Amino acid sequence: MPSASASRRSQEKPREIMDAAEDYAKERYGVSSMIQSQEKPDRVLVRVSDLTVHRADEVVWVRARVHTSRAKGKQCFLVLRQQQFNVQALVAVGDHASKQMVKFAANINKESIVDIEGVVRKVNQKIGSCTQQDVELHVQKIYVISLAEPRLPLQLDDAVRPEVEEEEGRATVNQDTRLDNRVIDLRTSTSQAVFRLQSGICQLFRETLINKGFVEIQTPKIISAASEGGANVFTVSYFKNNAYLAQSPQLYKQMCICADFEKVFCIGPVFRAEDSNTHRHLTEFVGLDIEMAFNYHYHEVVEEIADTLVQIFKGLQERFQTEIRTVNKQFPCEPFKFLEPTLRLEYCEALAMLREAGIEMGDEEDLSTPNEKLLGRLVKEKYDTDFYILDKYPLAVRPFYTMPDPRNPKQSNSYDMFMRGEEILSGAQRIHDPQLLTERALHHGIDLEKIKAYIDSFRFGAPPHAGGGIGLERVTMLFLGLHNVRQTSMFPRDPKRLTP
Amino acid sequence: MPSASASRRSQEKPREIMDAAEDYAKERYGVSSMIQSQEKPDRVLVRVSDLTVHRADEVVWVRARVHTSRAKGKQCFLVLRQQQFNVQALVAVGDHASKQMVKFAANINKESIVDIEGVVRKVNQKIGSCTQQDVELHVQKIYVISLAEPRLPLQLDDAVRPEVEEEEGRATVNQDTRLDNRVIDLRTSTSQAVFRLQSGICQLFRETLINKGFVEIQTPKIISAASEGGANVFTVSYFKNNAYLAQSPQLYKQMCICADFEKVFCIGPVFRAEDSNTHRHLTEFVGLDIEMAFNYHYHEVVEEIADTLVQIFKGLQERFQTEIRTVNKQFPCEPFKFLEPTLRLEYCEALAMLREAGIEMGDEEDLSTPNEKLLGRLVKEKYDTDFYILDKYPLAVRPFYTMPDPRNPKQSNSYDMFMRGEEILSGAQRIHDPQLLTERALHHGIDLEKIKAYIDSFRFGAPPHAGGGIGLERVTMLFLGLHNVRQTSMFPRDPKRLTP
Repeated sequence: MPSASASRRSQEKPREIMDAAEDYAKERYGVSSMIQSQEKPDRVLVRVSDLTVHRADEVVWVRARVHTSRAKGKQCFLVLRQQQFNVQALVAVGDHASKQMVKFAANINKESIVDIEGVVRKVNQKIGSCTQQDVELHVQKIYVISLAEPRLPLQLDDAVRPEVEEEEGRATVNQDTRLDNRVIDLRTSTSQAVFRLQSGICQLFRETLINKGFVEIQTPKIISAASEGGANVFTVSYFKNNAYLAQSPQLYKQMCICADFEKVFCIGPVFRAEDSNTHRHLTEFVGLDIEMAFNYHYHEVVEEIADTLVQIFKGLQERFQTEIRTVNKQFPCEPFKFLEPTLRLEYCEALAMLREAGIEMGDEEDLSTPNEKLLGRLVKEKYDTDFYILDKYPLAVRPFYTMPDPRNPKQSNSYDMFMRGEEILSGAQRIHDPQLLTERALHHGIDLEKIKAYIDSFRFGAPPHAGGGIGLERVTMLFLGLHNVRQTSMFPRDPKRLTP
Repeated sequence: MPSASASRRSQEKPREIMDAAEDYAKERYGVSSMIQSQEKPDRVLVRVSDLTVHRADEVVWVRARVHTSRAKGKQCFLVLRQQQFNVQALVAVGDHASKQMVKFAANINKESIVDIEGVVRKVNQKIGSCTQQDVELHVQKIYVISLAEPRLPLQLDDAVRPEVEEEEGRATVNQDTRLDNRVIDLRTSTSQAVFRLQSGICQLFRETLINKGFVEIQTPKIISAASEGGANVFTVSYFKNNAYLAQSPQLYKQMCICADFEKVFCIGPVFRAEDSNTHRHLTEFVGLDIEMAFNYHYHEVVEEIADTLVQIFKGLQERFQTEIRTVNKQFPCEPFKFLEPTLRLEYCEALAMLREAGIEMGDEEDLSTPNEKLLGRLVKEKYDTDFYILDKYPLAVRPFYTMPDPRNPKQSNSYDMFMRGEEILSGAQRIHDPQLLTERALHHGIDLEKIKAYIDSFRFGAPPHAGGGIGLERVTMLFLGLHNVRQTSMFPRDPKRLTP
């Protein structure tokens, strides 16, 4: 906004002249006092992404971080960063800047936030290291709004370096250092892209389901009894009693189905007290949960869930290409492939494929993680898809509330869904008959008293229904081809990490 | 789908003839075996809401609950309910139904789910007690899909009766009975409307913020240290240590601001271990949280938050009129009023209004609940709005991280927002300077070691920012003019209630 800045310049002139002897630019730089909402200046801050040749020769105000600074004789080059965008800025001794001002600019700690007034100038040679390649900012004023400490716990440039370059001897940042200093690690272009895409997954999930007539529900996380028999559950002190953290919203989703909401979804934290220190387990993660009454066959639900995931994949590939490319720069990866309709295999078919590949497995045995991954590769080779459904799991490996297959008592009406060979969803037709549910709970040795409220939910008429829970962090990780779920959880929780 | 049912009929004929002696309709009714996804019949189920004169004389299949049944000589009238819609059905002795079949229909327990094949018939006199007033269903087949137990813990008709009729001696249902049997209570038209509208609030909140360029984030609920000094926090056993449940996502939202996300929001559970047994406190509720970096003045954020709420109110009044009317039938209430732009009063102005109304209060005293409500009435009288902002709270009554007012050390850059005289949002400009934050934490007697990760977040450059947290259940309650937050929490948690 040239007019406002011009008027400000003219106000300052008398002083400038007065102090010229010692530093004629004295008023043009410095550390601002803390912004406490003292005033409402009539000043527009231009986005770094808007600094293009269209603004050539305009005087603009910009707020950004000092990404790097490099002094060189009578001038100082700064790279100013704003989210994933950056621009070069030049402070050079001349009419607007004194040598003291150049020195001040050169000494600003990296990551400090500055307000800069400058003229947008077209450059003759593209600036390859910046996103704004065609312009640079000629600084007229520079004020530090928030000063960073001089020693950064990690360097942003190291944090976005592809792992392959580590082998070439260049610095990268290990995961614990990243997570210990997450506030800085999240500033990298990779992190910004990962979490913008994750926000998109949630948005697409809801958009799709709301269009399909689903209702969003909120389910309690503090529960009075461990839902699935008491293993792997966190205990909470609840006034004078104990309570637990919900391992899934499933029982509540089901109650909503019994309460005639028909199609419900929720997004919320899920807690698992498992002492698993793997690349894909967290003690707290975000569940994208679906539950739906169906007419005659649980495949009606399987199709809705699979289509929801397909809509998410499509939406991400349509709306988040920039983010995908940004992440791929650091973590190269094949584009995610999927079929329409989604491939559905039965468990026994998967067993046959694995056995053919030399794996020995019993009919009622669950898939181990290595076998899951191998199966993913076999399916990719045969069907050219990174996403598929595995249907009809053995009853023995599923929870008590899973509906047995009416045709084969050793099978169940249950399914998992996989992305790049890793499970992202587990689901099933649920038993909606209180008597069968009681029998199955007893068979699993579950204390009926503890699940009384759950079983009672089905006593007053319950439609057949099915559903499933999706792990948000896993979907993000596997869609982007990342290798650790801690990369896709902003503040991950595992048995060894509770901070920040 | 007349064709499919016709073919089914013809298949059944031989048997019908065979059994005619004892019961010629024997195959046309009964209790179906449990739906275990045995088959995928090619049968379309028509929605009750689609049963209109446009379908007159069509043969349709419908799945619904038996809301009531009333036998009368050779016929039985059923009211079939599907969510908020219902239709009358008639089983009459004749070609399709035997007297045994009529008796069977009359004896089906209320709330059971049935599949019915019937002919849609136009009626001469509107059926006032049903939503589908112009047609009834002449039943040809009726099968129980899920049988309800004979004794219901509450009657749905009692559960939707306006409280005023209780005074006339008609039965209503008390809150604990409702909550103990929530699965049934949630089936009422009032509950269905309340929670559909609540789903709409979440949707409008996100829609508005995503349009404003906000990013959705997910923040951890298990934290290593009590965020606000340790009072009112639930303790969790975390492997061999203790952890806590987050009382708000605020510190994490702020870290996202320090990580350059600029504008973030989240929706998630919030936990408060307060032994408060009031109409508006829950130990677990859903927080709609916003945090935003601003340029020069926190009012930039206040305006965005207020506008977001206004967009929610408008969206509800536009898209959820049916739900609002349904709730008003049971709980009559004035339409919610708001101004654009939102009214913003300073705390000292509110004090003056209260003092003028005879209330004695100190300058640095917080508002009590009765004074909040009185103020709401005074504001409504003077400005004709149910929604307003109260700005510039005394510093003494706000948390340590609240930015003091630079002009008046006893005031702060903080605000609450009110609906119908009750607080629904609390927010502030946060201190983004680690040194001032440390001073204020010490002033509040907070153990610095416990908030180290939080304070450290601001050491590497932090923009000025502000935000706030909205209580979802309160917004739903106050928008609809309900009187207890337990009506707007599906499965409420309070010091005395953890089930269902």
